[in-house]
Amino acid sequence: MKGRREFLKSSGLATIPLLLPVGLTPPAAFANYTGKEENINFYTDGALTSPLEYVKELQEIIEKNNDTQDTYAKGGAVTKLEQKFAEITGKEKAIYMPSGTMANNLALKVLSEGNTKIFVQEVSHLYRDEGDAAQSVHSKRLIPLAPGRASFSFEELKEAVSYLDKGEVFKSGIGAVSIENPVRRADGQVFPIEEIRRISSYCREHNIKLHLDGARLHLASAYTGIPIQEYASYFDTVYISLYKYLGSKGGAVLSGDAKVIDQMPHLIKIYGGNMYQNWPYAAMALDKITHIEDTLHKAKTKGEQLISLINQSPNMEISRVPNGSNVFNLKVSAPVNYEKLIAHLKDKERMQIRTPDSQGIIKFFINETVLKRSNDSIVNALNKAISSSLA
Amino acid sequence: MKGRREFLKSSGLATIPLLLPVGLTPPAAFANYTGKEENINFYTDGALTSPLEYVKELQEIIEKNNDTQDTYAKGGAVTKLEQKFAEITGKEKAIYMPSGTMANNLALKVLSEGNTKIFVQEVSHLYRDEGDAAQSVHSKRLIPLAPGRASFSFEELKEAVSYLDKGEVFKSGIGAVSIENPVRRADGQVFPIEEIRRISSYCREHNIKLHLDGARLHLASAYTGIPIQEYASYFDTVYISLYKYLGSKGGAVLSGDAKVIDQMPHLIKIYGGNMYQNWPYAAMALDKITHIEDTLHKAKTKGEQLISLINQSPNMEISRVPNGSNVFNLKVSAPVNYEKLIAHLKDKERMQIRTPDSQGIIKFFINETVLKRSNDSIVNALNKAISSSLA
Amino acid sequence: MKGRREFLKSSGLATIPLLLPVGLTPPAAFANYTGKEENINFYTDGALTSPLEYVKELQEIIEKNNDTQDTYAKGGAVTKLEQKFAEITGKEKAIYMPSGTMANNLALKVLSEGNTKIFVQEVSHLYRDEGDAAQSVHSKRLIPLAPGRASFSFEELKEAVSYLDKGEVFKSGIGAVSIENPVRRADGQVFPIEEIRRISSYCREHNIKLHLDGARLHLASAYTGIPIQEYASYFDTVYISLYKYLGSKGGAVLSGDAKVIDQMPHLIKIYGGNMYQNWPYAAMALDKITHIEDTLHKAKTKGEQLISLINQSPNMEISRVPNGSNVFNLKVSAPVNYEKLIAHLKDKERMQIRTPDSQGIIKFFINETVLKRSNDSIVNALNKAISSSLA
Amino acid sequence: MKGRREFLKSSGLATIPLLLPVGLTPPAAFANYTGKEENINFYTDGALTSPLEYVKELQEIIEKNNDTQDTYAKGGAVTKLEQKFAEITGKEKAIYMPSGTMANNLALKVLSEGNTKIFVQEVSHLYRDEGDAAQSVHSKRLIPLAPGRASFSFEELKEAVSYLDKGEVFKSGIGAVSIENPVRRADGQVFPIEEIRRISSYCREHNIKLHLDGARLHLASAYTGIPIQEYASYFDTVYISLYKYLGSKGGAVLSGDAKVIDQMPHLIKIYGGNMYQNWPYAAMALDKITHIEDTLHKAKTKGEQLISLINQSPNMEISRVPNGSNVFNLKVSAPVNYEKLIAHLKDKERMQIRTPDSQGIIKFFINETVLKRSNDSIVNALNKAISSSLA
Repeated sequence: MKGRREFLKSSGLATIPLLLPVGLTPPAAFANYTGKEENINFYTDGALTSPLEYVKELQEIIEKNNDTQDTYAKGGAVTKLEQKFAEITGKEKAIYMPSGTMANNLALKVLSEGNTKIFVQEVSHLYRDEGDAAQSVHSKRLIPLAPGRASFSFEELKEAVSYLDKGEVFKSGIGAVSIENPVRRADGQVFPIEEIRRISSYCREHNIKLHLDGARLHLASAYTGIPIQEYASYFDTVYISLYKYLGSKGGAVLSGDAKVIDQMPHLIKIYGGNMYQNWPYAAMALDKITHIEDTLHKAKTKGEQLISLINQSPNMEISRVPNGSNVFNLKVSAPVNYEKLIAHLKDKERMQIRTPDSQGIIKFFINETVLKRSNDSIVNALNKAISSSLA
Repeated sequence: MKGRREFLKSSGLATIPLLLPVGLTPPAAFANYTGKEENINFYTDGALTSPLEYVKELQEIIEKNNDTQDTYAKGGAVTKLEQKFAEITGKEKAIYMPSGTMANNLALKVLSEGNTKIFVQEVSHLYRDEGDAAQSVHSKRLIPLAPGRASFSFEELKEAVSYLDKGEVFKSGIGAVSIENPVRRADGQVFPIEEIRRISSYCREHNIKLHLDGARLHLASAYTGIPIQEYASYFDTVYISLYKYLGSKGGAVLSGDAKVIDQMPHLIKIYGGNMYQNWPYAAMALDKITHIEDTLHKAKTKGEQLISLINQSPNMEISRVPNGSNVFNLKVSAPVNYEKLIAHLKDKERMQIRTPDSQGIIKFFINETVLKRSNDSIVNALNKAISSSLA
Repeated sequence: MKGRREFLKSSGLATIPLLLPVGLTPPAAFANYTGKEENINFYTDGALTSPLEYVKELQEIIEKNNDTQDTYAKGGAVTKLEQKFAEITGKEKAIYMPSGTMANNLALKVLSEGNTKIFVQEVSHLYRDEGDAAQSVHSKRLIPLAPGRASFSFEELKEAVSYLDKGEVFKSGIGAVSIENPVRRADGQVFPIEEIRRISSYCREHNIKLHLDGARLHLASAYTGIPIQEYASYFDTVYISLYKYLGSKGGAVLSGDAKVIDQMPHLIKIYGGNMYQNWPYAAMALDKITHIEDTLHKAKTKGEQLISLINQSPNMEISRVPNGSNVFNLKVSAPVNYEKLIAHLKDKERMQIRTPDSQGIIKFFINETVLKRSNDSIVNALNKAISSSLA
Repeated sequence: MKGRREFLKSSGLATIPLLLPVGLTPPAAFANYTGKEENINFYTDGALTSPLEYVKELQEIIEKNNDTQDTYAKGGAVTKLEQKFAEITGKEKAIYMPSGTMANNLALKVLSEGNTKIFVQEVSHLYRDEGDAAQSVHSKRLIPLAPGRASFSFEELKEAVSYLDKGEVFKSGIGAVSIENPVRRADGQVFPIEEIRRISSYCREHNIKLHLDGARLHLASAYTGIPIQEYASYFDTVYISLYKYLGSKGGAVLSGDAKVIDQMPHLIKIYGGNMYQNWPYAAMALDKITHIEDTLHKAKTKGEQLISLINQSPNMEISRVPNGSNVFNLKVSAPVNYEKLIAHLKDKERMQIRTPDSQGIIKFFINETVLKRSNDSIVNALNKAISSSLA
């Protein structure tokens, strides 16, 4: 097992240039996003909507459905959404929760029973972005694997298990393994399916439970072509976010066996996550879920063509992330003033891009807003912006 | 262990009002409430709105305000709502949370520090309606006072403290006292202000922290005439619900000293209550809060007159609950078929009342819907309904 | 929060017996007990030995046994003691622990699994004398039954279960019932066997686990004639103290099903109770356990005769505690100076008795020291002391 | 989950030394040690005594002291031992506990307050040998530094703090740093004093608490010449074992500020570690503590000479561990049958050594038993044994 320190040694400050990994830029930065019809956004995972756009969309959805209201997450859009998730993941049951942090932690709490140890990617949301909830609230020992890398191999897991087994006299049991896929802190990299398969069969053989933090699972599925249901089949529980690609402003759904999911309502209640009504989130996700796979597939295909077109342009170059999904590295070869470039794109072309890192690399996100205009017009707009921003 | 869902499933609408204290009727029972303009409802604490009504109202509110959006409960309507609550409670800071269960429990967790014992009314929400969250999640020993009664006296508290002090050799410290006011499980009875004053000064003298579960504090204030800020002044922390009188579909705000409230964002995160966006709840409450005191005052005054009028009617009699607020006991003296009566009121008069208990007492709630029509027309409607439902 | 130490410091010997229930007098009061051969002690549950007596006895025991040493509670006298306890309780397994507080709490933690509620006597050691360990360390909700009384009836338990069942919408499960027998805070009263039988069969039917805090179970058995094994048969787990009647200076043994007991070594370790060697406690108890039943039986029989004799004396009267065991109420009818009386008995007669309470009642304990002299000589000594202490 | 007992059962003596780091050999292996007067033992940290030897020694100690008995760890030898520890560590207070696992965990629980993160050596007892107590019982996140190495540098600590600080958006606070010194899993290596000084001043500056797991601190002190009190001065709390060098059969003492130590009696009670009497451990340690420094100093000096002598012998070579203390690497250059060698030494010379690892290295421990014979006679005995065990 490689420690975090090796990770620290091998990862210089230079590679974490804006302080935080991509995707970590706090969404607060986008608080003023207006979400106007024609805007194209190359800097967030999914499309964003303003409160006004959201409420208008919600009104249309409610007008089409006469059974929207839930009471304490029972009935209406919430129950229908849970049924839909059970269906798409192929699990017995599913349950709505206010946050992914709650979904991940309650899933692992129940799966691991009285055992303490949970293996997890070092770069995962669970390990780095949940305020140590698993440790401080649920008394678990998270054991980070593959520091700095998106995924661990089956062998790395086995070795870590064996290291504990041989070295610890007073053993506390192994509770579960948690896999995040795709990995937000690693440029949206996908966890290789062959490793998932081997890990899953190893875990089943050794009665180790396996949880999928699939907050962005729809994205992985769109880019790998592996169906949601196949991904889910390798895991005991699957969490999917409602506000990454399903258009909602919050919420999560956890799917799994009835005997796991049936314990959740009580746990959600005592941990304080049982809200009076939840349809303001659930109804939107319920509406989007029927066409999200199609939308993401179209965005991916159009994005691929766009990247080819950009790479034919003399002023820009886009390279891929290994095992990547919707995040790419854009480099502007012409000497530009980036502030000017970003401002021009936003004001004149209604397109938003990220600021470059110290190496001049712009993390370039493909999402469904790319579908709003033709690829030609997008490339033209980028080129025009570069020309008017030359340093 | 049976969960909430099983309970709701196995309990029909008809049986609930007889089994549970008033106010406990699960809102699921009202899932079909349509909230139409003219409807008057004598059976819930506050006015209810349908999802469609809610979304339309929300749209108007957003259109008036260009800074609504929050990100992870930061900014927009959430921050403005927190500032407003700090102001009305006279506390240094306030913070938004998804649920009252979270607000009560996190307040008491922080106030009680390492101490275990928390005194509380036996009939309180904290003791009976939060799934033992304080005990199972926060490792507290709740000590129930005044079983079956709405409030305890200062002497009862002192005696309970002294009983522990004398009788327990291995002491665990006293962490806090929690008071619910008004008391939902006790027909909305108000906790007497003189007791609050004596308890508060005793607690301050002995460095025992004091929390107010004021989910419905606006109601207490409207009926006693004691300002919210005076109530709040006796306590270290105050929780007020956003969906009892503030029109929202969920959410809670906790107010207190900065050194307490500043610990909350981390706790909310690790307990799983930090949602992506929260303005769908916060924006509504922010809008309502400016006129809620006025509205409740009007409803109370009109309600008093209505009760007098009803008591002049030969077929009905209304009696008060001691220390009561907006819940009254209605008895129909004429021999009626209650099913018919309720149906008639609903279908013909657009008025909703509760089913009677085994003694024939109908819990009769005054809320702001009473403002929609004249008292005369309401009494006439009630009388007409009685006449057409005679057994 | 004031700790045990402050309490002991600030409480003089004289005041304690009036403040605390019998049996609660902190043993610190007896720190100077010299344990000399002929001493008779009417004020503690069992016989006491001085460190020197203890070490000498231990040496003899070790000299007789060539396999005494354990390592981290494995092997030697510890393992043999565990086997002996499994045998006498008729359970699959037994395990040594450093304290009764640990035995009670770990038993209930494991028995109750994820459920929160545990029913217990209000006057029990678990509820009043373990520093809220069950609540603060193990996150349980102890529900006290029968306040101020030694035992609760089957009906009281059933009613308490039903009260929760009807009244709590958000249910947390019922984990276990704990019964202390005999009850130290209630003058050693015995829990009626018929109630134990009814409670046990109810609990089995409803899958509620049942724990016996039998710290002094040998005493109950001696006084009721019900074998240890029969008592144990009604419970899932049974804790018996090593220092009440088994002569040791500490330690506890918990007996139960293998699937419960097998979880204990890990729990003892993580809660900090796994000591390097434990034979200094275990070896003594192992030696005593073979003849404790016989000794207690003899002490009981001799005690009964002694009480008859005393009651024939004009200056003294002894009355029984209902459901009592070895604690009796002694009243000196002659007007004596109690300080003189106590001093005389101690210095001249080598007999120790307690100070009277405000009603003049002296709690009078029968233990095996009564076997050291003839009843006649004891009564003579008492009478002589009274005569020389007349006020 | 496999427990300690299963492990011990399934592991024969022969296989253990190869599987586990030095010092980890379960003491069960030495269960038959008879501790006879003249025996010399080169395979454990300290001298060992049999139960009979122990009890005889204890009797002498008790006969010299008329105030030995404690009651629930108050009074007698326990209180005197606590005072002695406060004195030798230069701290305000000290407190007796049953185990080092409890001492380490309660110290860190109190020091870290509400904060989650505790930095610790990866090879430390806390991280590898306490059954995940810190995580599962006390809800802490242990962050292992310097995997596989005895100590971390100040820079490594600072970098780890900064890694968290930069990389985690939802922060949980840093609670404490724990240092084990000397390190049992690393051949008794000593943590360099310059690093301790730099870490200590960094921690004080940043209000990070610092705990010393000094189970074997007397050993570090003897080998480095740095006084116990100087070591202690760099830390907020210091735990020292009673059964490593102080001759006891169990127990630990934690020293620190009064405001930390005063919280311990309650915590010891609720975690189940408050035993009825504790003098069987405390009295022995109290007796030994007055001359332990002198004894260890003599053993060290004599050991150094012994090692020089051995290295002059043609058949053996001893090399040092860097930063080592009392553990050395012995290699027999002559081709011997190790089973024969070990048996010969034990039976004919009354000397015990460890079995070699797969590289033929015998971990060679210097302890006070070396003082029993002259170095010349020891070297002669070793040489004689080698000659008669040639392969």
